[in-house]
Amino acid sequence: MHLSKRITTLTGGGSDGWDVFNRARAMIAAGTAVTELTIGEHDIRTAAPILQDMHASAMGGHTGYASVPGTAALRDTVARRIAARTGVPTTRDNVMITPGGQAALFAAHAAVCDPGDTALYLDPYYATYPGTIRGVSALPRAVRTRAEDAFQPRAGDIAEHAPGARSLLINSPNNPTGVVYSRATLEGIARVCADHDLWLISDEVYDTQVWEGEHISPRALPGMAERTLVVGSMSKSHAMTGSRCGWIVGPAEVVAHLINLATHTTYGVPGFIQDASRDALARGPAFEEEIAAPFRRRRALARRLLAGQNAVRLVPAQGAMYLMLDIRATGLSGDGFANALLDAHHIAVMPGESFGQAAAGHIRVAMTIEDTAFQSALRTVIEFAQRHAKAA
Amino acid sequence: MHLSKRITTLTGGGSDGWDVFNRARAMIAAGTAVTELTIGEHDIRTAAPILQDMHASAMGGHTGYASVPGTAALRDTVARRIAARTGVPTTRDNVMITPGGQAALFAAHAAVCDPGDTALYLDPYYATYPGTIRGVSALPRAVRTRAEDAFQPRAGDIAEHAPGARSLLINSPNNPTGVVYSRATLEGIARVCADHDLWLISDEVYDTQVWEGEHISPRALPGMAERTLVVGSMSKSHAMTGSRCGWIVGPAEVVAHLINLATHTTYGVPGFIQDASRDALARGPAFEEEIAAPFRRRRALARRLLAGQNAVRLVPAQGAMYLMLDIRATGLSGDGFANALLDAHHIAVMPGESFGQAAAGHIRVAMTIEDTAFQSALRTVIEFAQRHAKAA
Repeated sequence: MHLSKRITTLTGGGSDGWDVFNRARAMIAAGTAVTELTIGEHDIRTAAPILQDMHASAMGGHTGYASVPGTAALRDTVARRIAARTGVPTTRDNVMITPGGQAALFAAHAAVCDPGDTALYLDPYYATYPGTIRGVSALPRAVRTRAEDAFQPRAGDIAEHAPGARSLLINSPNNPTGVVYSRATLEGIARVCADHDLWLISDEVYDTQVWEGEHISPRALPGMAERTLVVGSMSKSHAMTGSRCGWIVGPAEVVAHLINLATHTTYGVPGFIQDASRDALARGPAFEEEIAAPFRRRRALARRLLAGQNAVRLVPAQGAMYLMLDIRATGLSGDGFANALLDAHHIAVMPGESFGQAAAGHIRVAMTIEDTAFQSALRTVIEFAQRHAKAA
Repeated sequence: MHLSKRITTLTGGGSDGWDVFNRARAMIAAGTAVTELTIGEHDIRTAAPILQDMHASAMGGHTGYASVPGTAALRDTVARRIAARTGVPTTRDNVMITPGGQAALFAAHAAVCDPGDTALYLDPYYATYPGTIRGVSALPRAVRTRAEDAFQPRAGDIAEHAPGARSLLINSPNNPTGVVYSRATLEGIARVCADHDLWLISDEVYDTQVWEGEHISPRALPGMAERTLVVGSMSKSHAMTGSRCGWIVGPAEVVAHLINLATHTTYGVPGFIQDASRDALARGPAFEEEIAAPFRRRRALARRLLAGQNAVRLVPAQGAMYLMLDIRATGLSGDGFANALLDAHHIAVMPGESFGQAAAGHIRVAMTIEDTAFQSALRTVIEFAQRHAKAA
């Protein structure tokens, strides 16, 4: 039976660089203890008071179809939060609630890209980006950022690929690099978007995880609110990954169309999850900082451990729950390093090659296990790299 | 700014026949008491024990990312249920859990239709069908069923539209007509699918609401398991509309591709909702009958009220939570009837024209309010029709 080209080519065909991840999972399934530094998910669960709020909403009767664009209360809360964080006037009509950030990424591309259109994204990238673009039958085109720039994208590199493209997807704070785009970087991006009439799809799901400097939403730059679709989520900021609650913020006209799309793709988000999300957001920045604190703490631990050696170099990064480590001094590829590390020490990290080509010779370490185990694993990674660096 | 043709043409442009519905909502918002017989949703909430199960799962820690294809436990439970109800061997690998039936309808079309492909559906139809097809940039083509056949589709009518088409979407028990497709109807449909190499997308979300005869899943017909994608959901069978939990059942090869698609469109369904759904399904057929009972009861009441008059004729139907009433004896269109009824008696029903062209001159009455109010409203509808029939 014939299947759509969309679905059969979704993953791009080639090796996806997730072999190490899959091998680690197989080892665990076979009973081997593996230290997993691969996963972008907190080592805590959703806080009990949030779950109590959810239960109260459900028992209170919010179990029927919720309004497709989202409840008025959650849309208002998200709008107020975004306005407060960015200074951009934002109302309910600029917000649509989605079943998670990934659904928002998909809907944003569906809204602006027709089949055959070209959509840009930056390498290294979060694993789903090119497939999300293929999912709307558009053509993904990667723009490489450079290790020597600490993966801050250059406007010139984007401009080179922009002619004929419809959209540009960015992510700051960035997964996998941890880099937070500077104002200069974002102004360069805004200029390219204006010059080439690109939509900017700005994935800001890590916006509460900034360890140095500040997160700037490009929607706040002059002239950008009308051409930017911001993707947000409860997942990372409130440790609610499994609740699948996110949003798109953009021009009201686009949101109206997105609501039509949602009627035909998801038909809304559970009302009790939206009520829990509204209550979670009402806890304010202190709660968000509490959720972010373990990563902030582990990053500080890692920087101390990494100081005073040259086998492993930390990419200068300011946010998110990951460390990107340059291991080129070992003479190994990211893939080779990660596989050898898994075999020798049963520690699983992601090869930079899992995220495209720009981060070859790097590994991504998720700071998502408790502090002592994290330090111990990182110490082993460093020693492992040092042995290889001497041999190289 | 340019938006995709997909999203700007999603609703087809023309009037969508939902004017009465919107007028009723506006009247309610303005403080007028309106009897709403428009909504496909139970007048009860999700049962407390199901919500307690959900809470126990969440508090037990099932709040992280759930497996994208669905939890093993829920996939197994759905597979066993489908196997038991249809006799078709079905395992976990044939099942993907989706955030609701609408997401399953969208994913099924995304899996089989590429941009520009033609996808068939039957008129009258559930409101989202053509837009779901447009959502994957395919071309919706309606095949009209006939009031004189009680809206059982004719194989010949479908065959006429089948050349060059990729898929056929059917829905039995049917919304809006309440018709349950007979074995002969389904055998005819299966023949057309085989002859024209069509995928059959079978929306069976009302499969527990059958008042006469039996529900037959076309996947159980010879040779059909390999070309049928069944859409199911917890919404109607377990009064869990707001939980957004559904599934697609189909060939394992297609499910594997659908899992890739889900990774890029929704990234799974909350684990605590899946656990609650598994527990709800474990309550078995007696619980499902309890949820269906009010509609069974109201249908019987309606048949008694409708007997012995000719102004309103009930379409011979066997299932679902709706009555389709032929009001052509009044000389009014469905739209004219519904608008006049709303003005005169503040009773809101859906014009047949809301669901395409085949049910013109009909109205759809949802049996979704409590028995006494339902009977009283239906009595008013009949008297209203009788006055118009005399005048006609």
